[in-house]
Order: sequence, then C-alpha cells, then structure tokens
Amino acid sequence: MTVINLSIDKSPRSWYNILSDMGGLPEPKGKEAIERLGQYGIKECLRQEFSDQRYVPIPDELQKIYEQVLRPRPLVRAERLEKALHLPEGKIRLYYKREDLSPTGSHKVNTALAQAYFAAKEGKEKLVTETGAGQWGSALAFGAMLNNLDPTVFWVRSVYNWKNDRKTFMQLMGAEVLASPSDRTEIGRKLLKEWNEKNGNANHPGSLGIAISEGIETALKDEKSVYSLGSVLNHVLMHQTVIGQETREQFRMVDDYPDYMISCLGGGSNFGGFILPFAGEVLRGEAEKDIKFVAAQSQSAPNLSMGEYRYDFADHGEITPQLKMLTLGHQTSMTPIKGDGLRYHAAAPIISKLKAEHKMIETIAYPIDEKHVFERGVMFFQNEGVLPASESNYSAACAIDHALKLKEEWEQGKFDEKVIAFNISGHGTLDMMGYAEVLGNKLGRRISVDDLERLL
Amino acid sequence: MTVINLSIDKSPRSWYNILSDMGGLPEPKGKEAIERLGQYGIKECLRQEFSDQRYVPIPDELQKIYEQVLRPRPLVRAERLEKALHLPEGKIRLYYKREDLSPTGSHKVNTALAQAYFAAKEGKEKLVTETGAGQWGSALAFGAMLNNLDPTVFWVRSVYNWKNDRKTFMQLMGAEVLASPSDRTEIGRKLLKEWNEKNGNANHPGSLGIAISEGIETALKDEKSVYSLGSVLNHVLMHQTVIGQETREQFRMVDDYPDYMISCLGGGSNFGGFILPFAGEVLRGEAEKDIKFVAAQSQSAPNLSMGEYRYDFADHGEITPQLKMLTLGHQTSMTPIKGDGLRYHAAAPIISKLKAEHKMIETIAYPIDEKHVFERGVMFFQNEGVLPASESNYSAACAIDHALKLKEEWEQGKFDEKVIAFNISGHGTLDMMGYAEVLGNKLGRRISVDDLERLL
Repeated sequence: MTVINLSIDKSPRSWYNILSDMGGLPEPKGKEAIERLGQYGIKECLRQEFSDQRYVPIPDELQKIYEQVLRPRPLVRAERLEKALHLPEGKIRLYYKREDLSPTGSHKVNTALAQAYFAAKEGKEKLVTETGAGQWGSALAFGAMLNNLDPTVFWVRSVYNWKNDRKTFMQLMGAEVLASPSDRTEIGRKLLKEWNEKNGNANHPGSLGIAISEGIETALKDEKSVYSLGSVLNHVLMHQTVIGQETREQFRMVDDYPDYMISCLGGGSNFGGFILPFAGEVLRGEAEKDIKFVAAQSQSAPNLSMGEYRYDFADHGEITPQLKMLTLGHQTSMTPIKGDGLRYHAAAPIISKLKAEHKMIETIAYPIDEKHVFERGVMFFQNEGVLPASESNYSAACAIDHALKLKEEWEQGKFDEKVIAFNISGHGTLDMMGYAEVLGNKLGRRISVDDLERLL
Repeated sequence: MTVINLSIDKSPRSWYNILSDMGGLPEPKGKEAIERLGQYGIKECLRQEFSDQRYVPIPDELQKIYEQVLRPRPLVRAERLEKALHLPEGKIRLYYKREDLSPTGSHKVNTALAQAYFAAKEGKEKLVTETGAGQWGSALAFGAMLNNLDPTVFWVRSVYNWKNDRKTFMQLMGAEVLASPSDRTEIGRKLLKEWNEKNGNANHPGSLGIAISEGIETALKDEKSVYSLGSVLNHVLMHQTVIGQETREQFRMVDDYPDYMISCLGGGSNFGGFILPFAGEVLRGEAEKDIKFVAAQSQSAPNLSMGEYRYDFADHGEITPQLKMLTLGHQTSMTPIKGDGLRYHAAAPIISKLKAEHKMIETIAYPIDEKHVFERGVMFFQNEGVLPASESNYSAACAIDHALKLKEEWEQGKFDEKVIAFNISGHGTLDMMGYAEVLGNKLGRRISVDDLERLL
C-alpha cells in the first residue's frame, strides 16, 4: 500500500520531550529578559520549556482540534518517485510525511494550536505575535481562531505591503493584521516619527526585531493578552513531535524503519518535530538502525555547518533571553531566498546540542539561487502529486540527492537495502511566484532524472 | 467522533451510473457533432456516456492514483459550527464532505484522473482541453501529469493575462498553457488576424467557445491527441460519484442518514457526484428517508429554476452535440461572479431530468453580490477551520440557511431530529482576491450567528 494512514485512535496522546533523554540543556542567560518572558509568555508553555518529563500529555480537547485539522497525517511510500529515479525496486525505499496538509500551509499550526489552547485555558483573550514571511502569522491566527481568541499580528511592513493574499487569509481568520512599525505601540510611534522626519512619509519598512518588540509591548500592556513564539524554543519543538511520533507508528504499520531521516532546517521546528522521537530511540539505545539525521539548509543561513556553538539572542532586537546555539550571529545579514523560512541565524538549542555535542546530525547547505532544490521539488511533485512549499523543496531535493547516491553504492554492492524518510513540511499553493522566478523557462515540461545535475 | 475517515480498503471500487435507475435520457442531437465527438473524444468515456450498467468498475491502477490523492476523503460532523449556530444539541446534525482536499483545489480532479487514465490506455500521448477560470485546466493538467501524458490547455486570454499563479501551477505540472485565441490553430490565427486588422494588436480577449474550438481542432489534427470535457456529460458525473458513495459508507459508519443533501451547482458535476448515489437509493425505493436534494446556485445563472427543459448546445460556439437540459440558452450573457464555476447556462442532462421530470431537486439562487454566501462561508471557516472555494461558499451558506430555518421549526416542535449533509467541493487558498473584494471591511473579525441576516 502506498499511502499509510494512521487511524485516529492510534494518534499520539503525548508530546515527546527529548530533554529527558539528552541530559538537559545549558540554562538560558539574561535575568531581566527571562523575567519579562514570564510576563508576556504562556505559563504552561514556559513550564513545558524546562520540563524533564519524557511524555507530556496532549489535553483531550486539543486532541480533538488536532483531529479536526486531520491529524494524523499520512506517511506515503514514494513508489512513483522511486520508479522515476530508476532506483532498484524495493531496495531503496523512499517515504514522505505529508505536513503539507496543514490548513495554513505549514507544520507551524501544530504548535500554534497548542499555544492558543493553553492561552485560552489561562483566561487570555488575545494572542499577539510577529511575522516575517507570513507563515507563522497565519498559523497563529488559525490557532487563535479555533480556540476562540482574537489574534493580532505585527507584520514587517516591507512584506505586508505586497503579500495581499496572505493578509486576506489572516483577516479571514479574524486577525487584526498591522504593518510594523505601527502607531499602536510606543516603540512603533517613535520609529515612525523618526522615519517621517527624515523621509517625509510613514513607510518605514520594519524588521522582524521591531515587530517582536511591538508584539511584546502590546502583550505586556494588557493582562488579557499573551505573546507567542513559533520556533527555536524547546516547547515549540516538543509540540511538533506529533509529526515524528506518527511517523514512528506508521513505520511499525508497514514493518519498516528509516536509515535516513531528512528535512529542511531554518530554526529547527519541523526538523525537530520529525526526527526527535527517533533521535530519542537512538539516545536510549532502542533504535533498530543507526539512523542518519540530515538537515537540508541554504547557503544563505548554514547555521549548523558554519555556526559557532555559543550563547546568542534568538532575535535581532535582543529582547529574548540568550540561548546556547549554533549561531551565525543574531545580527548577521543573510541573502533573501524563496525558502525564507530557512533564513534564520541559529538552530534551536536542542538541535544545536544534538549536532555540536552528540554529533548526531549531518547537514547540507544548498546554493542560494535555489535552482537545484526547486527542480527536484518539481520532479517530486510531478511524480507524487504533492506540491511542496519553497522550504520543503529542500527536503525533497536532499532525499532525491541521497537516493541517487545510494543507487550508485547499491550498484557497487555496498548494501542490500536502505530506507529514506523525509518531511514535506508545507504546501506550495501560495508559493507560485517563487516557482516561476526560480525555474523560469524550465516550467511547462516534465523533469526527468536525466535532467538532474548531480551534487552529491 | 468528529472526523469520519473511511479506510482505503472500504473505498468504492466502482462508479455508480444512475442512468440504470432513471430510465435513461433523451438521445443527444446533431449527427455531425456526435461523429466528431467520436474522433476527438476518449473512447472508453464515450462508451460510459451511453452505458446502462449500474456499476462501472474503477480500474485497479486508477484506484491506486485515487489513493495517492488521498481518497477516500473525510466526512466531518460539524459540531463546532452547530454550536456556533446555537442549534439544539444533537437534534440538527450537520456533516460536510471534504473535497477541498483535492490537490488542484476542486473535485474536478476525480474525473480528470479517470479521463487521463483511459486516454493513456488508448495509447494517446497528449491531452488537450480548454479552461475559463482555470480550475478545469489545473485538474486536467494534474490528471495528465500522473498518467504520463502531456497536457495542453487553451486558456481564454482575458483570464490567462492576469491569473499568473494558476498559470504557473499548470506549468509546474508540465502543461503547455496557451492564451486563446492562439497562433497554433487555424481558427485562432484567423481570429487573431481579424482582431489585429481592426485593433492593431494581438490581444484578442478570447472566449470559452473559441478555446473549445481550438482544443478540438488540435485534438483532431493529431491522432495521439485527445480532447477532454470537465462537466455536464454523464460519464463526468459518474466519475464524481466516488464522492457520494464514500459519503454513503461514512454515514453507515456513524449509523446516520441525511434528510438534506446540499451542494452548489453550475453544470452539476460536484452536485451530481455528491447526491446521485443517494438519489439512486430514492429511485430504487431503498432510501432510509425522504431526502431533499438542494442545489445552491447564483442568480447570475439560475438554470434549474429559470431554465427551459429543451435541447441546447453545451457550449457557446455550437460545436458539441445538443443535449436535453434545463437551459438559459447557450449564448445568454451572465454577470461575472467570484464563484465563476457556477456561471454556466445549463444543468447536466442527468440533473435536468431529475429536476424537470422526477421533481427530485430543490434549488435556491443567491444574490449576485455574493455577500450573503461569502459571509456564511467565512463563518464556516472560522468554526471548522476549512476555507471553502468561492463556489463552495454557496454550499456552506445553503447548509447554514437550512439549519437556521430548521432550528425555528424544531423550537416549534415540528420534528425531533434532522440531518444536513453538504459538500465543500474545493478550497479557497487561491481565491483570496475574491474574498477581499466581496467582504471588504467585514474582514478581520469573527462572524457570529447574530451577524447573519436571514434569507430563508
């Protein structure tokens, strides 16, 4: 069977907290910042952030909402892609997880729903956040919507100004969407005034750092409001482990097990969600195989391969506590790419430690022009019928590159069977402009394995 | 349980052909047109068109492709919406079918995959079609892609010129997308030349009729090419019955049965696919209840309520055979609406006969400004987390309107329990502009039952 559906009654009932198996993490730094976090953050999420409990139960009501957004999601054996890549039949097996089925277009909704649920339980009425490309803002608005909270999204103006469809999408969810800097906050008004004095208009382009500051100021001002973060933190990765736990069960259903687990990585929340339940098995000595965990990154932000393992801020504006991470530096400028969710200066503390100390993670950074990854993403689409988000093209490409390399090794008799699992973290339905720009005249025809230039 | 998942092994293995239960249909007219259809059409589809076999088996290979695009699709009990509408708990139950999960955004892909499959079996290499709004072109390109055929889409230039994302989407599937009229066909060249002589440019806006002519000319010229139609015909509705058959099984799983079945109707393919398996039970005297079938239409094209039951062409350009249908006239001009898939002059012969002779179908035509239906579509989204396509908003609205009316009747003690089932035929991810235009300042907030002006 190609499509492996896990039934609802086999859904994971807990999140998996890898802190319990990896000996904890270095403490965050920054006393004031940590105290402030206690004021604007969701209490249950902060408790989870430092928990060493291995399994944290998913509340029943939240479980119902996960079902409503069609969790569990299918794992699919990519037999059509295997054939198109001319892999030896059944000897190199590819499986992909369909997080593209998320209602907002990315895996982000797994944590957004959880955070909104806990905020509502704590009596909050408003959920505030910032967004850059718009994926996190959409996911949080969705989480708020299904938990009867009012979402407010501060959106970096330079993106807000042109992404009209994403704006409408958030507004349909009842979100107040504000171009940042806005006149709603002190810091926003100050920046707009300065800009106006210099430029004679109010079109300050904004930045993620400014949007975070505005969001936090808003949440601190109103005790019914709370601020929400979409990546990097432990509890965020933990919420995402529904992905990997489902995948684990689905592999049991077909009596198989991965040799490779591949996904794209910016801050690390989809990658973490996918691999951590398996990494836990490795750490506890329960894994069936010596799995290779491979992160597909962009040369624009190769934090895992080029980053230093040290304390750094999670944000450009230095508002968050400092965390020990593999980081390129929180104010480093990084070339914009279509897979903008991968353009983040540091990897989550959990991922960073697994890479730097446990040596459990391999990484590839793909060229900034993105032709290589988009071409492979389209080849995946043309065979499997699933259109990846720009970021998810990195997963598909990395899986294809590994499959082709393994094919050579198999032909040399180096092994009998290998299994690759990869995560399609989001859909590309709202990414058409990126596809058109990157692929240009390669659009409008079928991509075959002979068209692919080899990278590995 | 809210989400009713049918397992793959319970998928329908046949399409249901209602012709067997409704005593056939009046013969099509137009000898030449019928002969031409035999040349450019898919042979197996033409055989199915006139079949009186009750169940036509779905080939195993095609079944695998249906699974790949995640058939069966869930039926969902809309408990959250029921609560938001303040319906008496458990007494008025709403269920919706999730055709929005289609990979191209609409139910159209159910027949596109079937037609492409048969074309490939008949040794064809190229699948040609026309498209107006772009949904059918996308679906057919997708069907071709997964059956290793090359799709060619003639797209009415006035739409082609601005729907860049849909164009990219089709091209990603390997489709050659041509603005129509094009210089590829005799009729196209002739029209372009005339236009150029008059206007000094090549920007002929095109029409669906012209695009059909170009497609058919192309298919007739090349014996490896075949032309494909996306609605109205019997075999198209039959392919869509996977929707209703799954729904029937899903109702069995929860031991329930609909009193109302509601969906939007333009030509009738999603409506037919949804209701025909139940209409068959009614015709055979096997139905558990006296189901009301309700078609939600636009006042722009109220073919069921205002149409005459007579022979008419299926297309503006008079190329197709004439069929007996409820029709507004094949050259009637109809006001453009956002739910453009509903703007068609006639209802499919099967639906027309069920309405005109069997008196089995009720209908509502909604105002052309679409505020009423979009508002209800958004209320559905805000509670259930599923964003309908513009057309599917008519389904959601009609279900909500009926639920509110039933609520009054229930309060007056007129009945104990009623069940409404409706079909969400597509997703709205590519319809944001329509939402923004229709709803304007109603965006950015929650819509409650108190906001709804009553229509029924």
